[in-house]
Amino acid sequence: MHYERPQFFHVMQYAASADRDVVDMVSGNPDWEPPAALRDGLREYADADPDEFQYPPSEGLRDLREEIAARRNVDPDRIVVTNGTGEANYLAMAAALDRDAGSEVLLTDPVYPYYPGKTELLDADATLVPAERDGSLDPARFREAASEETSLILVNTPNNPTGAVYSRETMRELAAVAEEVDATLVADEVYDHFDFTGEFESALTLDSDRVIVTTGYSKSMAITGFRVGYAVLPEHLVDAAKTRHMLVNVTTSRPPQAAVLRALRETDAEYYADVRAMLRERAATFTDALDAAGAEYTSPDGAFYVLARFEGFPGTMENAKRLIDEGGVAGMPGETFGSARDEWLRFALVTPRVEEAAARLTDYFG
Amino acid sequence: MHYERPQFFHVMQYAASADRDVVDMVSGNPDWEPPAALRDGLREYADADPDEFQYPPSEGLRDLREEIAARRNVDPDRIVVTNGTGEANYLAMAAALDRDAGSEVLLTDPVYPYYPGKTELLDADATLVPAERDGSLDPARFREAASEETSLILVNTPNNPTGAVYSRETMRELAAVAEEVDATLVADEVYDHFDFTGEFESALTLDSDRVIVTTGYSKSMAITGFRVGYAVLPEHLVDAAKTRHMLVNVTTSRPPQAAVLRALRETDAEYYADVRAMLRERAATFTDALDAAGAEYTSPDGAFYVLARFEGFPGTMENAKRLIDEGGVAGMPGETFGSARDEWLRFALVTPRVEEAAARLTDYFG
Repeated sequence: MHYERPQFFHVMQYAASADRDVVDMVSGNPDWEPPAALRDGLREYADADPDEFQYPPSEGLRDLREEIAARRNVDPDRIVVTNGTGEANYLAMAAALDRDAGSEVLLTDPVYPYYPGKTELLDADATLVPAERDGSLDPARFREAASEETSLILVNTPNNPTGAVYSRETMRELAAVAEEVDATLVADEVYDHFDFTGEFESALTLDSDRVIVTTGYSKSMAITGFRVGYAVLPEHLVDAAKTRHMLVNVTTSRPPQAAVLRALRETDAEYYADVRAMLRERAATFTDALDAAGAEYTSPDGAFYVLARFEGFPGTMENAKRLIDEGGVAGMPGETFGSARDEWLRFALVTPRVEEAAARLTDYFG
Repeated sequence: MHYERPQFFHVMQYAASADRDVVDMVSGNPDWEPPAALRDGLREYADADPDEFQYPPSEGLRDLREEIAARRNVDPDRIVVTNGTGEANYLAMAAALDRDAGSEVLLTDPVYPYYPGKTELLDADATLVPAERDGSLDPARFREAASEETSLILVNTPNNPTGAVYSRETMRELAAVAEEVDATLVADEVYDHFDFTGEFESALTLDSDRVIVTTGYSKSMAITGFRVGYAVLPEHLVDAAKTRHMLVNVTTSRPPQAAVLRALRETDAEYYADVRAMLRERAATFTDALDAAGAEYTSPDGAFYVLARFEGFPGTMENAKRLIDEGGVAGMPGETFGSARDEWLRFALVTPRVEEAAARLTDYFG
């Protein structure tokens, strides 16, 4: 396996060791408070009986799976609680590929770099299908790319890095393409709490046995380090996922499961709405500055990233470093997300210093 | 993949749903208190800044790796902190197999059932090499079994289920066999804190670039549900393990890493010695009763299991269930650990009711 570490690390390290002050808009790490009940959940767990410190069921704490099942309107037996959405995607992809329905994986371009990495880990071949200029997907392109070798179509909505939210009709069509070539559609919905359109619908609502949905609490509860995610699989794939989960990880760590369970039960809608409002404000501040700097950009419909294109300043690693050194703002080079956005830079809205970053960009490019 | 769930689950479920009171000696779940500092570590973490709730480095918290490195006298860059020893074994096996040095894995018989499961997951073939009657290993048997197809030799010491502690000389010879056929030796030392001989030495002391050591805190800190383990790999294999770890899990959950770090720093030797003394006492109580019941048994040199053979009562699943129903004691059937101990039953010393269990066995078999 010759997979390289995602370039995130490289850019973050470069930014951290710069000689000047840099506003870090590279990582996907929320900078806001987790739900208060999450902290309470950890405190409560710290005083639990020793038997609560032992193996939970391999597929996750029963109460947590039932809480999720009730919210998602699915059978708890279809849920596997995983070490973050990352493991959920790995299990979902492996389960789809283990069906021996082919070794090709259709991904989008731009693409979240972990997806081609996982594809290679699983000895499959990735084909990138271009997203449209506005970030939306045209299912016809997937139909054209799909063949009997296609085992899996994997998309992320709301999308990192484009900020697009795919319509229910798009997702239904992608599921239909999967059906036509005997493949599985995996929808990574980890940004499901960050939909600014009010129109996002989970692919679970398609109620299709061709669809796996993966998600987690890393972003919605601002706890990327906790590693609690889950996959909802159709019945015919759930055993394969549970078996692999058991053999790789035995089970997901229990203290974060317990904390997430309490936070799920006790956190009201206001917490999530406040974070969404803050992110919308940050996006507006930032894109106003991009207007002033004469840049092209995408206003996110979901997730928390802004893609920006500065004339004569393509999204190379070299330019990302130049912007750190000369502009004092760190973003991800678009070239690290496939080829479709190699003219662009991605900025994550995970810093209270968005206004400052925006001013610096206006100064530098304006 | 047609791997079946380990039979642990089956027996535990059967015992839990029995009509009568049953002393559960099936699981490997410690029933004693974790170190007090572990609970303090969780409490402290619950109040941490939001940025401490985000992704730790993929290979583990820097401070934790340095604490481990100092204790084990290895370079921190050789350490990957994993989701328990289970993931450490998975990464170690995959790293050894990815060298393309063959697709055969040598395991012991009796064998911990997850090892053949992981072997199958990794598309390799397991060959079981019999342990001696007393549980020790004869390296000559491994030399005979090894060939150019052998990529990996995996042993567990102190051993589950035999209670054997392999001598340093045995481990050195196994490393030599690995060297001869261009393979890797993996030593799973998760029971390293439960050595009753005082002579156990980690395979790290062999200082061989053919050796990977895996271990974790599940047993030593009585926290099987926390999922904090690690692998120490030779330099030429560490990148492969880190890459797979990142692609499968991104990173190990942070709250348990923080708690383990504090417990490592603040727990004195007395904690571990007290647990060892308690286990020795339980072993003595239990084997005295086995004497009275006329059974053959192994007194563990390490780990916390006793293997017992009752005349005319082989270690089948059927008999394990019969003993639950008729004797009120739940143990694991030896047949689930390969073929070498299919006459035996395994009893885990993880209950304060060992004396009661012993009395019940004396009544039933005596």
